[in-house]
Amino acid sequence: MMSNFDLIVIGGGPGGYVAAIKGAQLGLNTAIIEKDRFGGTCLNRGCIPTKAMLHAADLYREILEGGRFGIHAEKVTVNYGEVLDYKQETIDKLVSGVEQLLKANGVTMLKGTGTLLADRQVKVTFAEPAEDGATESYYDAEHIILAGGSYPAKLPVEGMELQGVLTSDGLFALKEIPESLTIIGGGVIGVEFAEVFSALGCKVTILEALPKLLANLDKEISQNLKMILKKRGVDIHTGASLAKIEKDPAGGLICHYTEKDKDQSISSQYVLCAVGRKPNAAGLFLDPEEFADIAENSAALTTKHLEAAAQTAHALGITMERGFIETDIYGQTGAPGIYAIGDIVKGIQLAHVASAQGITAAEKIAGHTPNVDLAIVPSCIYTSPEIASVGITEEDAKASATPVKVGKYITSANGKSLISKEERGFVKIIAHADTGEILGAQMMCARATDMIGEMATAIANKLTPSQLLKGMRAHPTYNEAVGEALEELEGGAIHMAPKKKK
Amino acid sequence: MMSNFDLIVIGGGPGGYVAAIKGAQLGLNTAIIEKDRFGGTCLNRGCIPTKAMLHAADLYREILEGGRFGIHAEKVTVNYGEVLDYKQETIDKLVSGVEQLLKANGVTMLKGTGTLLADRQVKVTFAEPAEDGATESYYDAEHIILAGGSYPAKLPVEGMELQGVLTSDGLFALKEIPESLTIIGGGVIGVEFAEVFSALGCKVTILEALPKLLANLDKEISQNLKMILKKRGVDIHTGASLAKIEKDPAGGLICHYTEKDKDQSISSQYVLCAVGRKPNAAGLFLDPEEFADIAENSAALTTKHLEAAAQTAHALGITMERGFIETDIYGQTGAPGIYAIGDIVKGIQLAHVASAQGITAAEKIAGHTPNVDLAIVPSCIYTSPEIASVGITEEDAKASATPVKVGKYITSANGKSLISKEERGFVKIIAHADTGEILGAQMMCARATDMIGEMATAIANKLTPSQLLKGMRAHPTYNEAVGEALEELEGGAIHMAPKKKK
Repeated sequence: MMSNFDLIVIGGGPGGYVAAIKGAQLGLNTAIIEKDRFGGTCLNRGCIPTKAMLHAADLYREILEGGRFGIHAEKVTVNYGEVLDYKQETIDKLVSGVEQLLKANGVTMLKGTGTLLADRQVKVTFAEPAEDGATESYYDAEHIILAGGSYPAKLPVEGMELQGVLTSDGLFALKEIPESLTIIGGGVIGVEFAEVFSALGCKVTILEALPKLLANLDKEISQNLKMILKKRGVDIHTGASLAKIEKDPAGGLICHYTEKDKDQSISSQYVLCAVGRKPNAAGLFLDPEEFADIAENSAALTTKHLEAAAQTAHALGITMERGFIETDIYGQTGAPGIYAIGDIVKGIQLAHVASAQGITAAEKIAGHTPNVDLAIVPSCIYTSPEIASVGITEEDAKASATPVKVGKYITSANGKSLISKEERGFVKIIAHADTGEILGAQMMCARATDMIGEMATAIANKLTPSQLLKGMRAHPTYNEAVGEALEELEGGAIHMAPKKKK
Repeated sequence: MMSNFDLIVIGGGPGGYVAAIKGAQLGLNTAIIEKDRFGGTCLNRGCIPTKAMLHAADLYREILEGGRFGIHAEKVTVNYGEVLDYKQETIDKLVSGVEQLLKANGVTMLKGTGTLLADRQVKVTFAEPAEDGATESYYDAEHIILAGGSYPAKLPVEGMELQGVLTSDGLFALKEIPESLTIIGGGVIGVEFAEVFSALGCKVTILEALPKLLANLDKEISQNLKMILKKRGVDIHTGASLAKIEKDPAGGLICHYTEKDKDQSISSQYVLCAVGRKPNAAGLFLDPEEFADIAENSAALTTKHLEAAAQTAHALGITMERGFIETDIYGQTGAPGIYAIGDIVKGIQLAHVASAQGITAAEKIAGHTPNVDLAIVPSCIYTSPEIASVGITEEDAKASATPVKVGKYITSANGKSLISKEERGFVKIIAHADTGEILGAQMMCARATDMIGEMATAIANKLTPSQLLKGMRAHPTYNEAVGEALEELEGGAIHMAPKKKK
């Protein structure tokens, strides 16, 4: 029997749509199923809107500080409605771009919820009835890629359901800048929103249960960021564990938390729960009718739904663990022909990981040899200064007893950083002590998010500092700081005071 | 006989001071001679002040355009005095940083004019008399590095000596924003100043004799930049040859030029002559007394002085051609132990080339093997969007009949570029058609000046697109555009409409 498609992708986020385009480019007759807007969380409710709001907020701050450069302005104001419009226009442009690309590549776009059935069959429950009145249809394919994405997690804490307790989705929907905001979680999402809203005049408090912000990153980055955010007026409590949230009789909400064994509380107009994202695998295996009542609020999926989903998945030969689908390095699940990518897969939940996994799966399906190294994942935070990291940190090296040398350069002497009066930043590069191969890099400085790319290239190709220093770095650039950190590994940067000899 | 020093460097610009520090780091007993301020043209009268003024000017423009992002300001004004102060403070910080580094590395700093004599001897004519009243002193060294730098060239055209006809040195010295400015020369210096002063409200006209701006760069960059500068109100005339300058009876100056065989003229308050820089070799070989009367204005060195300098150089075993010193790839001149680096050497006059040559010479002198590939020179222009280029262009490939493939990505679909509402830009990567090795890259987009570094690394290490795609690029970043251009070389970018099949 002929299948309808060579490839069906369920989910149109940055994993799914990229996989569909790559599949089509490689000659596969491809369909993609998306119940909402193409672009997924990243474009509609994640990376893109956050970065747009950061752009506006940073511009506002820069204008207020313009006098440092001789540029003055009076009555500097934020029109938050316009900020939201600008954010939405940016999203709309990108979403329509994705749709155009899918079309131009000949991908069949199906608008609805895709549910995986046996025998590589997919049921599509249409978002809107078809012209002939049909509300659903069935398709089969040689290969299926599951890309269900994720939804914001909530903590199992009393008061989470109160009005005014928001996830990132809800925060984006606010029409006015909150007067005050308590952010639960000092991870990437938490610190980015702290930067946005504190810049816009909101009183922001961060409660982070772990001992430091950005727990997985280089220690020094966490320390620096804490200092900088505090300077900008953000109240930061680390090692602060949320106990419960309740309504403040005076208006707003009160977060009760424990810090250094002491009970504390903070009142604010809104609370943002930014404690990570949960895999949305349930929707892929359960018929939408089974959770129609809560479809608008994926976060309300119960343990019952999740268990039912895992059972269905299991019956199809797919293993799940705590909601995550298990795959091999190409994204193949235990079920022949079924792949999974992105936030529903165990691993790092980032848009570019999903895209890379999507390309890898599509290449594998089309009989090509995937090229990208999925183990090397750059991670970026769009605060000011920017933060970027790839590969191992000094702490990782210590923990795994890997012998390394570290080249570190403080950007205070970097010409471009002085010109733009950047906060104190640094570039740190970690190389293997014996082979010299670069194993990791951490940057906290202007343009870090765009300079980390070369470090990923270096790690993926086992390059050494000496190889990276063969090419000149232009002057004056922020990129010279990378050159100086590399020189430190090779015996001494030029623009750094020599270490005292003992 | 023991020499005073292992190494004497004459000239404290980005070539000389870097060579001195590297020499000291490698154990050489090193002295450096500088008659003016350390940092040379680059820090005091070149890269740094231009980029500082561009930073202020771009901020001013961004504030005026802030409404696009929902950020409004009233009465936006430039306090030019403060801009100049900020520029000067930035310079001062960097210059004092250089002095501290020289000191920390144990380099002996001699303030005065260094003149090369026979037998690796140097005469230093002190800038100020020493404590004992001495006005000069003599030193010898095993090795000498000549790093005399360059000064702004003037065209041999009538009226060049008129008041109000400035070089970049003079333009920096103006205390007020000119009402109108005619820039002779549409090279890097010309277009950067055009961006600065047009943003600040000055009526700017560019007269470029060649058929395009930025003559040595990719054709499309020139075209795009012309369009963008025109949109910002700059009047641009290419193929426009300056005939003479005369005083305008109504005030200001009139530039007479020929465009398409037609005589034209333009009147403006000031004229900037930005037609490149001349090597300052004369000062290295002539005793200061010989040109004491014109020492304040190196540009006034006559043919007689240059010839005398060349003769002296020749007698010392050093070959000069049109004022440039000839060297081998390590910077060695024909005279044993005498090296030359930077703008006085034939080649590309850029600060980072001078620094790289300085490091190379110091390493060679200290018996180390130099690493950096001096043939691969990134070149950056700090307009908005930024421009950066390294290696060969498409036109170069055609001219040398090198079989290449070109991966080009238009940044209009790049998320970060949409967020910051960048001008239309692109990334172009040139690879050898047979080996796949990357041979060149041209970028005109946000952060191009910091992303070109990886392309220099790629060319220097003969990397292929496939190797550069092994590492993931983070989302959303401008750097993704580099990934997409690489994908184009490998068979198709994701975020680019597929080419129509024929």
